[in-house]
Amino acid sequence: MSLKLTILGCHSATPRTFAHPSSQFLEINNRFFLIDCGEGTQTLLRKHKIKFSKIKHIFISHLHGDHYFGLIGLISTFGLLNRQTEIHIFAPKGIEKIITLQLKLSKSWVKYPLIFHELDSKKSESIFEDDKVEVFTIPLKHRIYTNGFLFKEKTKERNLNIMEINKYPEIEICDYQNLKNGKDFTLKNGKIVKNEKITFDPPSILQYAYCSDTAYFENIIPLIENVDLLYHESTFLEDKKDLAKSTKHSTAKEAATIAQKSKVKKLLLGHYSSRYKDENLFLKEAQTVFSNTELSYEGKTIEILPA
Amino acid sequence: MSLKLTILGCHSATPRTFAHPSSQFLEINNRFFLIDCGEGTQTLLRKHKIKFSKIKHIFISHLHGDHYFGLIGLISTFGLLNRQTEIHIFAPKGIEKIITLQLKLSKSWVKYPLIFHELDSKKSESIFEDDKVEVFTIPLKHRIYTNGFLFKEKTKERNLNIMEINKYPEIEICDYQNLKNGKDFTLKNGKIVKNEKITFDPPSILQYAYCSDTAYFENIIPLIENVDLLYHESTFLEDKKDLAKSTKHSTAKEAATIAQKSKVKKLLLGHYSSRYKDENLFLKEAQTVFSNTELSYEGKTIEILPA
Repeated sequence: MSLKLTILGCHSATPRTFAHPSSQFLEINNRFFLIDCGEGTQTLLRKHKIKFSKIKHIFISHLHGDHYFGLIGLISTFGLLNRQTEIHIFAPKGIEKIITLQLKLSKSWVKYPLIFHELDSKKSESIFEDDKVEVFTIPLKHRIYTNGFLFKEKTKERNLNIMEINKYPEIEICDYQNLKNGKDFTLKNGKIVKNEKITFDPPSILQYAYCSDTAYFENIIPLIENVDLLYHESTFLEDKKDLAKSTKHSTAKEAATIAQKSKVKKLLLGHYSSRYKDENLFLKEAQTVFSNTELSYEGKTIEILPA
Repeated sequence: MSLKLTILGCHSATPRTFAHPSSQFLEINNRFFLIDCGEGTQTLLRKHKIKFSKIKHIFISHLHGDHYFGLIGLISTFGLLNRQTEIHIFAPKGIEKIITLQLKLSKSWVKYPLIFHELDSKKSESIFEDDKVEVFTIPLKHRIYTNGFLFKEKTKERNLNIMEINKYPEIEICDYQNLKNGKDFTLKNGKIVKNEKITFDPPSILQYAYCSDTAYFENIIPLIENVDLLYHESTFLEDKKDLAKSTKHSTAKEAATIAQKSKVKKLLLGHYSSRYKDENLFLKEAQTVFSNTELSYEGKTIEILPA
């Protein structure tokens, strides 16, 4: 029950030898997710020893090349490796046509189930849910249709306070699930026993929000409030605030302002423009607003344990 | 007037940290050509300091991903770099749809002219010609429609033998171009002066043949006879001859046999399967048949001067 994020690529625009476009690998509550898939992602997965077999769900924020040009190669490689287990792709409308056209023309249709979940809603929605994790879109403000993603551990059951429960012989084992789910108990005499009197709070849940690419956009604040970790793009510094505005990107200070207003616990910067040679400038600028900020870099891992 | 080939990637199937899929950069008679464009090619171009501005013509052998998945990224990067000069793409039918679909969905149409020359002929044809170089397809035998490419310096003009010419006062300066083009000269008395008597042979022309991917295929021999350099795929060794046959690839020995029968001057092997850890085994096997064989590796350059 921890959250572990590995940064594969965290630079904007074009891949270079030591600056890879967006891609991250997230482990949360024993579920594994690949987030964005720039050119070269499969090579970085190998380099950082992330097993391909762990990947079953891939989330693509938007259809700018630095966020998805590595997807067709990864899908093909899964095929060459004789993968059998299914892959789910969550991405903007159009992705299925792009991928299937290429598989068709190469006559290399993959043998594993390749399932597309195309996104086109402008409202936040739940797009994945199992017993451990739920994933929501975070609609962002960019030049084309773009979503961030909120990865949220499922609400855990309350723990039973057996000592208190035993004071009420009317409560039977078959009632326990209702108590774990937070329900009060009504005694035969009509008196109500409040749930919090007979249960303990569940362990805290962990949440990770990925927001890239986006202009400064306060609409996301209610969606990402209090998350344990926020990755927010910071393509530019304040010296290029106009350029950030016209290209619908954010400055490091703007990312930090969103982090502060959302009361997140930690901010991770990334998607740096290659015009800046010293990435510490991003950190310094952000920390004037939000001190618990860190820089992304290839191979960095962040692990967060529940409070 | 030399031929210089730089190997960017020369491995088959999936990209790895130190094994990149097919891509080569050719300089011939002051013309520059990119041949195949596997994932990561743009990063390798930067690494080996090949200027993007030199690339105007890109040749794609076939639509298996390890030969073209890097193309959309390169095209996009050209756009981000504000390229103005045109790019010509020579590739199997389908490439235009693949590229334009992705540019359209990203709303990132490039501002430079992007010109597609889609190939679907099963016969060798001239697909590019200027005053310096001509390029022909070499139809290959693979699982999908595939061409190799023959890059051939243009036939050069014959050199005038002025001392001999001066013996015939009837030959005037305005006749020289005909002589350079190889024509005989007819004197007023009806007597013919043979061209070879009054001109010298032109400098020899250089030819490079790229043949990947292909099964052993003797039909290509007349097309590549006597070339200065032949790159012929050698995905397997003879120990996997059956696999080579079923996947329509070649063994190192088969590549060498083609080189020998075509009387090429030098053979370059590549497109190695990752199952072989020691690439010297390819060299050894080929050299049992054709001694002037070399191995491709990332960053290797071969320069050939005219005889």
